[in-house]
Amino acid sequence: MRDVLESIPEDVLTIADAKRGDIGNSASFYARSVFHDLGYDSVTVSPYMGRDSVEPFLGNVGTCAFVLARTSNPGGNDLQLLPVGEQALFEYTAELAVSWAEDQTGETGLVVGASDIDSLARLRERMPSVPFLVPGVGAQGGSGVDVMRAAGSGPLLVNSSRAILYASDGPDYASAAASVAKTTRQSLGS
Amino acid sequence: MRDVLESIPEDVLTIADAKRGDIGNSASFYARSVFHDLGYDSVTVSPYMGRDSVEPFLGNVGTCAFVLARTSNPGGNDLQLLPVGEQALFEYTAELAVSWAEDQTGETGLVVGASDIDSLARLRERMPSVPFLVPGVGAQGGSGVDVMRAAGSGPLLVNSSRAILYASDGPDYASAAASVAKTTRQSLGS
Repeated sequence: MRDVLESIPEDVLTIADAKRGDIGNSASFYARSVFHDLGYDSVTVSPYMGRDSVEPFLGNVGTCAFVLARTSNPGGNDLQLLPVGEQALFEYTAELAVSWAEDQTGETGLVVGASDIDSLARLRERMPSVPFLVPGVGAQGGSGVDVMRAAGSGPLLVNSSRAILYASDGPDYASAAASVAKTTRQSLGS
Repeated sequence: MRDVLESIPEDVLTIADAKRGDIGNSASFYARSVFHDLGYDSVTVSPYMGRDSVEPFLGNVGTCAFVLARTSNPGGNDLQLLPVGEQALFEYTAELAVSWAEDQTGETGLVVGASDIDSLARLRERMPSVPFLVPGVGAQGGSGVDVMRAAGSGPLLVNSSRAILYASDGPDYASAAASVAKTTRQSLGS
């Protein structure tokens, strides 16, 4: 894994999409491993176990922890859309995670999938300056244009993995991947 | 890690306390890694991403997936106690996870911490035959006697890690660990 990381140019942001979520003691070791031992720039973190499972990832200067809020997979609907008072669980979770970050020195972001554009737009309206990591463009069917319209007014990191990685399993895999990457980028208007 | 696993006698149940929770595609690879490559008997899984993130862990004959329901850490209260209709989120989650398991060939259990004995008792009442993995006895302050009273009528796996592992950092670490393990065992009435 270190070899892969070292082959990535310095100016490219790396994301440890590890979806960590454990008791504080374990979370501290995970955070150290991700940011210090492996040197990632950011990480994804699961909120189900609450504050002490997320906090160790928030205090690392120059890094970002993206907390899962509204995920783009089919099962994302199972818990995240549950009504909690006047809002959905994912909105409650997003607000809570951002409140944990208040006195922290690292950047805190949210994972908000492209497959539910309405939720993405609603969260952006409530949180104009929180960085969103947006999966679900590409293999999971989300559109880059829709994402930009819903949330492009704030900081956004749109991720497409499988659509690019598996663009072709033939000898043209590199050019096929490059081509899908370019098209995706264009759909984001950049 | 393989060396550690291989040194554990065959008749001792192993738990990959990995708290996995990712999209179906990644979950399938994680399940294969945990059960086939590493040969663990069981695993812990986080429910926030819903059914397709948990299901790949449920279909492995002779293994058990413990889904996080009510965790014993302080942050466990942050989301898990939220009211969802008439019940708390952890109860809703527990019911849902057990329903996902219906047509599956592996065993499905729940993580229910010892730090909230009332919740443990309530879940046991609703689910008399679901295996519970119970952390929080020992370092996190839960009592073995209380756990047995609340949930001992059904299948139970009580876990104490740090209280045993870190019983002493002196040269007597092995005997100190053995002593704490024995006391813990006695408190469980076995």
